[in-house]
Amino acid sequence: MPGIDKLPLEETLEDSPQTRSLLGVFEEDTAATSSYFSQLFKAMQRIYDAQNELSAATHLTSRLLKDYEKQRFPLGGDDEVMSSTLQQFAKVIDELSSCHAVLSTQLADAMMFPITQFQERDLREIVILKEVFQISSDDHDTAVNRYSRLSKRKENEKVKSEVMEDVYTSRKKQHETIMHYFASLNMLQYKKKIALLEPLLGYMQAQISFFKLGSENLTQQWEEFLTNIGTSVQKNILKKL
Amino acid sequence: MPGIDKLPLEETLEDSPQTRSLLGVFEEDTAATSSYFSQLFKAMQRIYDAQNELSAATHLTSRLLKDYEKQRFPLGGDDEVMSSTLQQFAKVIDELSSCHAVLSTQLADAMMFPITQFQERDLREIVILKEVFQISSDDHDTAVNRYSRLSKRKENEKVKSEVMEDVYTSRKKQHETIMHYFASLNMLQYKKKIALLEPLLGYMQAQISFFKLGSENLTQQWEEFLTNIGTSVQKNILKKL
Repeated sequence: MPGIDKLPLEETLEDSPQTRSLLGVFEEDTAATSSYFSQLFKAMQRIYDAQNELSAATHLTSRLLKDYEKQRFPLGGDDEVMSSTLQQFAKVIDELSSCHAVLSTQLADAMMFPITQFQERDLREIVILKEVFQISSDDHDTAVNRYSRLSKRKENEKVKSEVMEDVYTSRKKQHETIMHYFASLNMLQYKKKIALLEPLLGYMQAQISFFKLGSENLTQQWEEFLTNIGTSVQKNILKKL
Repeated sequence: MPGIDKLPLEETLEDSPQTRSLLGVFEEDTAATSSYFSQLFKAMQRIYDAQNELSAATHLTSRLLKDYEKQRFPLGGDDEVMSSTLQQFAKVIDELSSCHAVLSTQLADAMMFPITQFQERDLREIVILKEVFQISSDDHDTAVNRYSRLSKRKENEKVKSEVMEDVYTSRKKQHETIMHYFASLNMLQYKKKIALLEPLLGYMQAQISFFKLGSENLTQQWEEFLTNIGTSVQKNILKKL
């Protein structure tokens, strides 16, 4: 429905069928948004979990290599070349696992946090406001109903005035809740765009930092290390084969 | 036990207590190696699985963003800025998921393949050879036993010659299997070094390629994209807030 981007707050008092129909469109859009975000949230949660697992598994591998020299191998106790080589591997793999851990933290802060906030705060607020609005509408209907039955019979002035007071306050309450509900639905149309873009920007920035960290600090030193390993392996280990 | 790195094949015929004791040391070392590799294998499998999951989750995220414009949002059907921005995000995240997929493949070939081979072929061969050696030793013991009982009684020449033939062939068989077993145990001492270094070198090379691919091809284009997004977001989306 192009062109419509706001529920008219000024028409909330009137509560016309047109306004109600427009509200239906906004509610439908909110449901579609909620469903789409739920899928995106799950996908991002999978990325985040996998990144954490990768970081943990990389760290574990590094620790196992570090522990090589503590293993009780009855043979090869004199194998210093192997031990020092594995220590070096342990060191660079540990550095890599640190890069992964930084990436995990950045994803938590810049991707998971905003999308979780949107899910748990903004979308949840709409659900609650809808309920509150429904309750106040029901209260108002009850009061109006009571008033309409009242007018056909003879009642004392005290009851009449009480019922009218009730219609007035429930109408006022309903008007307040619908204003709040409309305002939140209008706001959601903008918030959802930010809520889509913010975690994506956070994700991309985290990836860029990760690649920069990896390529600037690590790969050159890794390549030197691998060249040394290559030479050392050829000299000390492979020649025995 | 420094200095020992081979079981003496030339002493297998004698089968002395010294040789048996040395065999015990090699078997203990093999058990320790097997246990260490089993842990390392599990850690590498975790890295590989997490990398695959990361690749799949990244691809899914890209696909969800690509599908944004197909969503039936009753409002915001005219939001071309948002749609095209998400298409661009989908594109770069898909490129990133391709880098992850390349990394997964390299880890499969250069890390998981060699360590799996060592686990399932080399270490398993030792287990089987030990069993075969045990069986041939038992057969030889039975034959010798039969021969020793035989010599105390009067038997006909045919039976005697059969039993002696049996002792001879089982001795020959046992010697063959112990030679094979010793040779494999000796070989394992070298193979295990290669089996440690090969997957680690494969892992490091795969990581270096990944960082190169990411930083050379993607980050510059990503940063330009993010700058454009930033401007576009400020101009078209945030100003409405």
